[in-house]
Amino acid sequence: MRRIAESTVRRLSLYLSFLEEIEAQGVTTTSSDDLAHLGGTTSAQVRKDLSFFGSFGKRGLGYSVPELSSRLRAILGLGRQWRVCIIGAGRIGAALTGYAGFVERGFIVSGVYDSDPAKIGTDWGDLIVADEANLEQDIAANNYQIAVLAVPADAAQKLADRVVRAGIKGILNFAPVQLAVPPHVALRAVNMAMELEALTFAITNNGA
Amino acid sequence: MRRIAESTVRRLSLYLSFLEEIEAQGVTTTSSDDLAHLGGTTSAQVRKDLSFFGSFGKRGLGYSVPELSSRLRAILGLGRQWRVCIIGAGRIGAALTGYAGFVERGFIVSGVYDSDPAKIGTDWGDLIVADEANLEQDIAANNYQIAVLAVPADAAQKLADRVVRAGIKGILNFAPVQLAVPPHVALRAVNMAMELEALTFAITNNGA
Repeated sequence: MRRIAESTVRRLSLYLSFLEEIEAQGVTTTSSDDLAHLGGTTSAQVRKDLSFFGSFGKRGLGYSVPELSSRLRAILGLGRQWRVCIIGAGRIGAALTGYAGFVERGFIVSGVYDSDPAKIGTDWGDLIVADEANLEQDIAANNYQIAVLAVPADAAQKLADRVVRAGIKGILNFAPVQLAVPPHVALRAVNMAMELEALTFAITNNGA
Repeated sequence: MRRIAESTVRRLSLYLSFLEEIEAQGVTTTSSDDLAHLGGTTSAQVRKDLSFFGSFGKRGLGYSVPELSSRLRAILGLGRQWRVCIIGAGRIGAALTGYAGFVERGFIVSGVYDSDPAKIGTDWGDLIVADEANLEQDIAANNYQIAVLAVPADAAQKLADRVVRAGIKGILNFAPVQLAVPPHVALRAVNMAMELEALTFAITNNGA
């Protein structure tokens, strides 16, 4: 498969969120114009984005909403379940275990880990905080595919190395640090610090 | 000022985080090569990024770490305090009120708002959850510049409209929805759903 730009994947996500919204309203067909409007782009760009993945829609008839949304879900890897562990039983970990978007995307969070003896064994709703020392054996035993890192910056790379060696396929990193992982492991970062700096940069340069 | 691409701002953030790290280790000078390595770019790109903002460094001598970091902090709007209110006293709001990165970037969180009578009046450490109905008068009275939206998707646009009318300069949006704001208001979104979809897309297309 050709390499797809990150901005394309982002637009596919936007198209899907729009399709799911109108599907819930009972709308059955849509156009590249409608999709373009939402994605802040042109209908030509929409057709180009979708053409990467084969043929969609019929000229003059637009797209079938259920068909296109189901194809997009498959393209984005959402048509299946993902086994997830959260590493770091702090505030971010707590916010994440209750995050409805995980379940909607097929993420089954079945482990929370920490190294703090005061946290290990505490009850987190459906889960008990487990000992980080058991990560490798648990990843193998439970077939975790995704690890969410919600730990301090100075602990993140070492934990990333451990979960990668244990066979994890993807990491979602909340630690404010750039991680290095081998190319076969998918990595996404939610970097609050960068978002804050982009925001204050924009306010400052808007003349505020 | 010329419009600066988002990717440039992102690299400036990376350069700054690297400078702060080596500054803490007592390093006093650095090179565009070192900065390039961290930002995943070239030294020519580093010089170009910094040249937008005037002249830095001396040929052959590199950059003064304290001088460049202080200039970058000013460029990114970090050399001052920002008055922030958090709207939505749920799990994300709770994780944010304890987020150390806010304080480090000069964000003073001095209000948390909700519309739920069961939450209004509850004690959140230094703050008491306030009634969302008072948002407009509080934004004016407390001179809030930034609003963090940590509310459900269907409530977010209406709240964004309210805080914009009340004079807010920037919005950090955690609701899983695209917001429309006028051009004089800065907007950044932390969209967990998109990060998850980019992650599962990458895992799926890595052949995992």
